Amino acid sequence: MYILGFDIGGTKTMVGVADESGTVLAMRRFETKSELGPKQALDRMKKAAREVVREAGVGVDVIGIGCGGPLDRKSGTLYTVPNLPGWEGICLTRELGEDFGVPAYLENDANAAAMGEHLFGAGKGIDDFVFMIVGTGIGGGIIANGRIYRGFGENAGEIGHHKIMSEGPPCPCGDRGCLEALASGTSIARIARERLAEKPETVIMQWVSSPEELTAELVARAASQGDPFASSVWQECMHNLGIGIANVVNILNPRLVILGGGVTKAGSLLFEPVRRVVRERAMPALAADVEVVPAKNGDLVGLMGAFAVAIDNVLGRA
Amino acid sequence: MYILGFDIGGTKTMVGVADESGTVLAMRRFETKSELGPKQALDRMKKAAREVVREAGVGVDVIGIGCGGPLDRKSGTLYTVPNLPGWEGICLTRELGEDFGVPAYLENDANAAAMGEHLFGAGKGIDDFVFMIVGTGIGGGIIANGRIYRGFGENAGEIGHHKIMSEGPPCPCGDRGCLEALASGTSIARIARERLAEKPETVIMQWVSSPEELTAELVARAASQGDPFASSVWQECMHNLGIGIANVVNILNPRLVILGGGVTKAGSLLFEPVRRVVRERAMPALAADVEVVPAKNGDLVGLMGAFAVAIDNVLGRA
Repeated sequence: MYILGFDIGGTKTMVGVADESGTVLAMRRFETKSELGPKQALDRMKKAAREVVREAGVGVDVIGIGCGGPLDRKSGTLYTVPNLPGWEGICLTRELGEDFGVPAYLENDANAAAMGEHLFGAGKGIDDFVFMIVGTGIGGGIIANGRIYRGFGENAGEIGHHKIMSEGPPCPCGDRGCLEALASGTSIARIARERLAEKPETVIMQWVSSPEELTAELVARAASQGDPFASSVWQECMHNLGIGIANVVNILNPRLVILGGGVTKAGSLLFEPVRRVVRERAMPALAADVEVVPAKNGDLVGLMGAFAVAIDNVLGRA
Repeated sequence: MYILGFDIGGTKTMVGVADESGTVLAMRRFETKSELGPKQALDRMKKAAREVVREAGVGVDVIGIGCGGPLDRKSGTLYTVPNLPGWEGICLTRELGEDFGVPAYLENDANAAAMGEHLFGAGKGIDDFVFMIVGTGIGGGIIANGRIYRGFGENAGEIGHHKIMSEGPPCPCGDRGCLEALASGTSIARIARERLAEKPETVIMQWVSSPEELTAELVARAASQGDPFASSVWQECMHNLGIGIANVVNILNPRLVILGGGVTKAGSLLFEPVRRVVRERAMPALAADVEVVPAKNGDLVGLMGAFAVAIDNVLGRA
């Protein structure tokens, strides 16, 4: 079985061809350019798809698509997706499936990534784990008893929007005090920017010409060099990320919490404090059961997820 | 099929006989007297069991037991249970099963209660819901895809110990800022007691001779009479309970959150503010999916749970 996978993000899209074992035969990564509108952006995706299929030199049997939600998985249609303005009502499974005449399946990106880690990554052979993507936002996918858990309305896993500080800072979701508002890449940059108003001494200001250019990556880099300002912001955010993970551990008692997304590129600068907080703040029996590990699919976490979505729908095993 | 059920709490125990439909044929409620030590307390339970079986006038086919954890479900044995000091290592399934020569099954009380609500209560026919007991502590049980979800180490559902105020007040679990530390019956009484140090005017002080006698029930009663001090404490605790439930809704997207336990006897004084907070603070799509409802098994929530545990083990359907 050969799978064509699409990982559609607000900024970047990946398209690739893999076999059933997850071996990637060909792939492309390009700008989504969602601002061109769905018609033109989809045309770019279809063109890239034709190219990778040609390059792979195989026939495609099934298509898997991971995309930011909210979306209606069963009909393959997007609702109002914050990262894809103007795409509401687009039926991705039809649009991307028709050129190839094979079945296409859609899943929200965090669930897809969790399924990809389950089939091909750090969660292989593990029946109970939580996947979290820590990047622009914080998303989650729950594998329970060996299957993705979608909940009643298929929106389970909004781990980024559980509140760890009920009257905390505003969150893009419209509420406040959510984990995402305290520990996502965007939030790390926002918190650092706010603190710069106090004019601290920090190497960061030698790297950017204005606070608007500040990113979580720069905060991490400065923290890793021992910059006190950056270290303080970073540690505070990692503490909050650890609290959020400890909460998920207490509620779901997973074997693993797998972390993917841009912020996790900080490596041990992220995993060490987060693991310490989970060990200290989750209940001892549950803390002893869990390991917090990086996603094995790395930068391909979304694309591998798209392949897994197809495999799950055809063979029922992600 | 006739079931003998035991609901063993730190203070009270219930024992009863029911048929497969959950119709109770006979039951007793009595003090656990765990301080007598397991031998004597278990003898009292066995005596009560023989009485209810005689009264029911049927033969018992299976035994279900719900008990505060942590415990090892598979061997039927208690670990160190805070509410049953000195009971560590007691094999409840053997102790309570041997007199009747039928299989006995053990489950932690919150999971058992969730299973009871699933088979006989507010969760009948509902595949995805969360049960929470709000009493001395706050416990939880998760029904996912129509089955109890136990997680990797069988300790999932510790909803009372997720942190909604990471540096909040100390919790009996040893951590701080847990939902239980902010909204359990014990915490409602504790918070009221702390605030009494500020010598507010409140009707409560006419009801008790010392702050130590203060209970969540008295706070609720005074709040329902419009006492400003009690109302302020009560509303704050209900706000926090609502935040905790909104978090669970965002993580699990349940169709129902079913609330049982002593504090829920406050009725609409509890459900109205909690439902409002869930509506305002859970993500709109997930808030729209969920209803927050009282446990239908009421005071029998634990005993009906014990029956469900037996039925689930024999017939695989709780």
